[in-house]
Amino acid sequence: MCQLMGMSANVPTDARFSFTGLVERAGRTDVHKDGWGITFYQGKGVQDFRDLQAGSQCDVAQFLKQQCIKSDIVVSHIRQANVGALTLENTHPFRREMWGENWTFAHNGQLNDIDTVLPLGRFLPVGATDSEHIFCWLLDQIYHQFPTRPADTNALYTLIYQLRERLHAYDVCNFLLSDGHVLIAHCSNNLHWITRRAPFGPALLKDIQVTVDFSDETTPNDVVTVIATQPLTTNETWQQMQPGEMVVFAAGERIAEFN
Amino acid sequence: MCQLMGMSANVPTDARFSFTGLVERAGRTDVHKDGWGITFYQGKGVQDFRDLQAGSQCDVAQFLKQQCIKSDIVVSHIRQANVGALTLENTHPFRREMWGENWTFAHNGQLNDIDTVLPLGRFLPVGATDSEHIFCWLLDQIYHQFPTRPADTNALYTLIYQLRERLHAYDVCNFLLSDGHVLIAHCSNNLHWITRRAPFGPALLKDIQVTVDFSDETTPNDVVTVIATQPLTTNETWQQMQPGEMVVFAAGERIAEFN
Repeated sequence: MCQLMGMSANVPTDARFSFTGLVERAGRTDVHKDGWGITFYQGKGVQDFRDLQAGSQCDVAQFLKQQCIKSDIVVSHIRQANVGALTLENTHPFRREMWGENWTFAHNGQLNDIDTVLPLGRFLPVGATDSEHIFCWLLDQIYHQFPTRPADTNALYTLIYQLRERLHAYDVCNFLLSDGHVLIAHCSNNLHWITRRAPFGPALLKDIQVTVDFSDETTPNDVVTVIATQPLTTNETWQQMQPGEMVVFAAGERIAEFN
Repeated sequence: MCQLMGMSANVPTDARFSFTGLVERAGRTDVHKDGWGITFYQGKGVQDFRDLQAGSQCDVAQFLKQQCIKSDIVVSHIRQANVGALTLENTHPFRREMWGENWTFAHNGQLNDIDTVLPLGRFLPVGATDSEHIFCWLLDQIYHQFPTRPADTNALYTLIYQLRERLHAYDVCNFLLSDGHVLIAHCSNNLHWITRRAPFGPALLKDIQVTVDFSDETTPNDVVTVIATQPLTTNETWQQMQPGEMVVFAAGERIAEFN
């Protein structure tokens, strides 16, 4: 399988602390060593970093742990390959443009033979993963319903919730999806989140001896939600999502919830 | 304006030497300081790095100058903003998926009010540059003619040459375009290339005191073409492209030429 990490914040926020914990699981404290990727939104644009080496031992990942890249939405993934070879085109997150916006998707799970069940149209996979196939199918279905962005965003989230029902019923499908406005988290069997807000305090990573005191890094108005397959810290209480639950985060807050 | 750099090689090749020369022009020896980007193809997949800082003073660019990333097609760009603000979505290269393949585009030139002249359809710009608009229009036109990749690739290159005539007639449009198979270079008024093959020798960058002896870095069978707005080295003879000329490079060799 794989592991996911996402962030939604109301101010551009440095995600190094969470990324540092995540990539330890990419070959050191866990087995997800088959490439990794991270997408940082800054407004409509994105910076994207990925590599085929194990995140815990990769120069690009080491470099990112030293870089203060501030972003309001982050989507990251460490891979344990099952479907699809160890190639760049099979690393997550995947990205497509729809409605003139950057859509990003990262997936943890496995849906066998999904290419025979979910037909594609406008968006096609570049690689060979079930994950990219799912992403292309989701976007196709959304585009079919809404050729342009709907004014009623709740209708959009409701459609995505209906669509992911088919995936959830089929097999394991935890995912993070973003259009640059919101970060959508769907739990099939394994996803957690935490929202940090004032008063901020210290946090201790689970996978490596690193502590940060968020009161030194934030202002009292900051709201930052981090989502991860498994909690990244040991001294905080993370919320475990329920199977079939989907949460929409915007500016660090839960703005919609489906279950 | 902006400057372009591309590479096509018959074996995965390290493009650091050319990139090192290019980014000097991003704020030190020239004015192209409004962000930069580089896309490395490895098979169907890509690694993409970009930043809003001047390439000559940017941590990510400095890091890349130390990294040996081997690639068979590279597309890079340093920007001097004229149309579109200094934002990530306005940095080149741009990328879209078509036919399940990663298409990449970087542009040097200016085509004013192009959005009123070239209508769009399937592909939409995320940012506000004339360059991304041109790219989306090109892909739309190609897709309209060939909903799937044509077996006759010469028909594809011929169509691209016909399409770019409209851009060339309109105003300045030097560009690099790749589908991961070939690298297409179009010269409106300013583009040069050089093909290096055995016997390899030393090369000296124009913009910074850096020399490489390619005989230490290559095997006798290597063929590597580098394309740049202005020659990157001082001790080699670069070919100047003619206005309206388009060359298709594959595995380092010129495989088609239009003029």
